[in-house]
Amino acid sequence: MKRPWAGQVEKPPEEHIPRFDPHNPLCPGNTRANGEVNPDYDSTFEFENDFPALQPHAPDPGSCQHPLFQSKAARGVCKVMCFHPWSDVTLPLMKKDEVVKVIDKWTELVEELGSTYPWVQIFENKGAMMGCSNPHPHCQVWASNFLPNEPALSDRCQRAYYQKHGEPLLLQYAKQEAERKERVVVESSDWLAVVPYWATWPYQTLLLPRRHILRISDLTADEKEGLADIMKRLLTKYDNLFEVSFPYSMGWHGAPTGPHLKDDNSHWQLHAHYYPPLLRSASVKKFMVGYEMLALEQRDLTPEQAAEKLRNLPDEHYKTREK
Amino acid sequence: MKRPWAGQVEKPPEEHIPRFDPHNPLCPGNTRANGEVNPDYDSTFEFENDFPALQPHAPDPGSCQHPLFQSKAARGVCKVMCFHPWSDVTLPLMKKDEVVKVIDKWTELVEELGSTYPWVQIFENKGAMMGCSNPHPHCQVWASNFLPNEPALSDRCQRAYYQKHGEPLLLQYAKQEAERKERVVVESSDWLAVVPYWATWPYQTLLLPRRHILRISDLTADEKEGLADIMKRLLTKYDNLFEVSFPYSMGWHGAPTGPHLKDDNSHWQLHAHYYPPLLRSASVKKFMVGYEMLALEQRDLTPEQAAEKLRNLPDEHYKTREK
Ligand SMILES: O=P(O)(O)O[C@H]1O[C@H](CO)[C@@H](O)[C@H](O)[C@H]1O
Ligand SMILES: O=P(O)(O)O[C@H]1O[C@H](CO)[C@@H](O)[C@H](O)[C@H]1O
Repeated sequence: MKRPWAGQVEKPPEEHIPRFDPHNPLCPGNTRANGEVNPDYDSTFEFENDFPALQPHAPDPGSCQHPLFQSKAARGVCKVMCFHPWSDVTLPLMKKDEVVKVIDKWTELVEELGSTYPWVQIFENKGAMMGCSNPHPHCQVWASNFLPNEPALSDRCQRAYYQKHGEPLLLQYAKQEAERKERVVVESSDWLAVVPYWATWPYQTLLLPRRHILRISDLTADEKEGLADIMKRLLTKYDNLFEVSFPYSMGWHGAPTGPHLKDDNSHWQLHAHYYPPLLRSASVKKFMVGYEMLALEQRDLTPEQAAEKLRNLPDEHYKTREK
Repeated sequence: MKRPWAGQVEKPPEEHIPRFDPHNPLCPGNTRANGEVNPDYDSTFEFENDFPALQPHAPDPGSCQHPLFQSKAARGVCKVMCFHPWSDVTLPLMKKDEVVKVIDKWTELVEELGSTYPWVQIFENKGAMMGCSNPHPHCQVWASNFLPNEPALSDRCQRAYYQKHGEPLLLQYAKQEAERKERVVVESSDWLAVVPYWATWPYQTLLLPRRHILRISDLTADEKEGLADIMKRLLTKYDNLFEVSFPYSMGWHGAPTGPHLKDDNSHWQLHAHYYPPLLRSASVKKFMVGYEMLALEQRDLTPEQAAEKLRNLPDEHYKTREK
């Protein structure tokens, strides 16, 4: 962290976004690329991505005998989901019951797409720095006919731990972190957000329920309220860190679905990962490059330092605070 | 690739870099952060990083009984290595015998540091977009007292293939690609550069020798000349793609060293990975974000499309070509 930085400087996140832009395809009442007109929605709104990476009827690539040249069709569905009708709000600035509606919609989509697809990936790319090309508050939900690499690895590790210790890895982990305290950012009776012991992104966090929960669709109404609350608290701290709308990629991991709904998934514990790129300021990010890509992630600050910094930030958002 | 792009646009790489800058700590004769004065070098030049991520005497973190909270001291050495005394050249614009000197220095460092350290990672972050903060042509060499994640995985997979098929994975792979041709970018009698079958970065390439070679230090003088030649050809194509000094992270992987010098490493094959971030133009990059971080890399173009595009570019650098 003492290295002088004469490298790339990012444009800090845009602070003045109009509430409604007649040319933004995510706003209520506007026309999208494929000619469809958005309804005049007043809460959440989802539709199929007009430029999907996964399609339900992708062609079969054909087979090859050679072990080093194996491929299979990747089939699925890509949805876009708006959080709110206004472009100038973000989750930490939304009302708690509006955030609960987002969680309800996530649940609905996981149930709908998860009835057949083995994996439903909810993820949010927030901020231009994270490849997001539309400032309107939204996330994406991609369902696939296969278990992608990251959840496959997560499944394997959680299963191995469960087989050895008879307890879900992340349930035990949450208990330990709640006791150790040094990596806790925010907590409540139902939820816990920590900078994980293994964090590599500077302000990476892991959001965990405190009881054993396989999927987002298993949350009670109370737990959804608690989740809305802790998400607002965590994201407010993120925004307060450099006093900008904090960029990140986040996503949910829960037990596999579709054909796996009938398997024993006791080793799984629902959780969300937050991966923010910023390191030193609103404009200097962490570059996950050379050594990181070719060898191992290099940490610029420790999880304990990051957690302490976030924990000590005010709970009130810098935009609504009185100066 | 048909998605409209209204997202982040990068500043294209700087084209006018002074040959000598009295304030650049990498130039010959200048004083560095720690007060040391660089020699008036006229070829390559290496020194210990003034802000090292790895240190030979890093303290022991102490031990913890809990299986989820395990850590060990990461010890090592970080070196910086300049390719040339001039700041305004890059490898594709350097003379072939100057590039041979770079390869000789790599060999020397792998031999020196690899005599004790199990892993010596040579890597180059080129361009501000790849977190490089100094335009002077240089790379880094980090040696560690452990096998980092990526080489550990590579070791495991190469070993498993060798045990099953009795031939090094990457030797067989190079043979196959040389026959199939569709992913080849440049080739010579000794070397082959392909956009690998599994590429995820848009113009990712893999540079491979055609005979079985464990480490860079095993190259013959002829093979080093051939390597200088194919590197110049590959990097010229990269620069010609968008007519900019093409950013990337690259690095060498070879059989482990130090205590592993006495092991049987027949499953290993020396290779270099090139990971460039640009996708559509000199200013629009591929964002490895949401779905990629949480699930699986999503390819915006196929390896065959990328290889064809690179293969068909001229062999002469756009800067030296007559217009
Ligand atoms: O070593 P540098 O050039 O200061 O830093 C660069 O390379 C390092 C190793 O890949 C990364 O950890 C840094 O994020 C990057 O900015
Ligand atoms: O889907 P979008 O917003 O067009 O695109 C963004 O998210 C995708 C999924 O993480 C990435 O593949 C793209 O690189 C990124 O720019």
